Amino acid sequence: MRNAYLEDLRNISDRLVDMTRLAGSAMSRASAALLDADIDLADAVIAADHEIDTAREDLDTLAIDLLARQSPVATDLRTVVTAMRMSSDLERMGDLARHVAKVARLRYPESAVPPELRETITHMSQAASRIVAKAGSVIASRDLADAASLERDDDAMDDLHRELFAHLADAQWDYPTQVTVDLTLLGRYYERFADHAVSVARRVTFLVTGDYDTVVDREDEEDSVLTS
Amino acid sequence: MRNAYLEDLRNISDRLVDMTRLAGSAMSRASAALLDADIDLADAVIAADHEIDTAREDLDTLAIDLLARQSPVATDLRTVVTAMRMSSDLERMGDLARHVAKVARLRYPESAVPPELRETITHMSQAASRIVAKAGSVIASRDLADAASLERDDDAMDDLHRELFAHLADAQWDYPTQVTVDLTLLGRYYERFADHAVSVARRVTFLVTGDYDTVVDREDEEDSVLTS
Repeated sequence: MRNAYLEDLRNISDRLVDMTRLAGSAMSRASAALLDADIDLADAVIAADHEIDTAREDLDTLAIDLLARQSPVATDLRTVVTAMRMSSDLERMGDLARHVAKVARLRYPESAVPPELRETITHMSQAASRIVAKAGSVIASRDLADAASLERDDDAMDDLHRELFAHLADAQWDYPTQVTVDLTLLGRYYERFADHAVSVARRVTFLVTGDYDTVVDREDEEDSVLTS
Repeated sequence: MRNAYLEDLRNISDRLVDMTRLAGSAMSRASAALLDADIDLADAVIAADHEIDTAREDLDTLAIDLLARQSPVATDLRTVVTAMRMSSDLERMGDLARHVAKVARLRYPESAVPPELRETITHMSQAASRIVAKAGSVIASRDLADAASLERDDDAMDDLHRELFAHLADAQWDYPTQVTVDLTLLGRYYERFADHAVSVARRVTFLVTGDYDTVVDREDEEDSVLTS
């Protein structure tokens, strides 16, 4: 019984790591579609989102099944409940990648990103890839130092978000309103993607340290980049 | 044992209803702060958000405690897991109200909302109040017709969101970029607030009908207002 349980737990952990790969791949491809105005790639990202949704459903079914069959308590119970929360974060990260792809799709054959913002968006995309890959490692390793380092990656994302808004607020900014709207939303999608990756890392940390109930969304503890 | 369990379940349900009241009050006051450029009210909303966060933590602690003590299976297990998901939706709705309050705060002593958009934002605020109040009723009553009617309320919110974007896209729109950015984000905050209320109603529906695993985010099933 105990062995079956441990195997289930490992299975859940492996699936969470798989979900980080799916979310990372989705955001990285959505960013390429956005920057290159590649509508086929955008469509592929949009079509693939159901894989992350299905991965989440399967994982949650497995978790509920495990709760019903094994009735875990204490740390084991918290591990399973936390896994469901992580799957929710990761599924949402997939949604945010899909949103980026939809902006790419909508502006085709143009790119939604004007030349002076290509570098910032490229850096945001790279920051997103880095942070979701680290979230995957942290799920597998439970390494607290790695988990903590995601906070710094998220600070870097926030800096990029500020940089983006500085461009929009600049007196030189002279694009149609639609471009401003697109960039405002894109900035938020990347920021929220990173926030959810931080949540995943924090959930791992608090599982390891036992201080389970204090995971807060990144957004909860600080002013948003836009409104500070 | 069974009675204690039923009492716990009722307690959880009551707390969820309380959370809908907190989230509804937060969004309604945040909207007033936004439209009236009332910084004291904005600050009060921002300061009160921790109440919703605490309500969520308490509810989740209660739910995990119930899982550990009673080891529910089947419908009972799903009810408890679903309650945790609803508390997550409701806590997020509180965050979105706080975001609205922060925009109000940031633009003080001006209102972030220019005259020609006051009516649209007022209607979005009213739609938000209506939908969160209904979500509370649905949690208490488990009435499937009421739950279904939230979808129509959310359609109304989507229409208002489109109306907002039509204003921004209009050739007459001649406000500084910051105003466009603020309105883009405000539109998204109201839309997401309604989406989470719909999720709550759908979770209730699927608990009652037993088709538990198919709750999808409103955003998952349709193009976003902005990118369609």
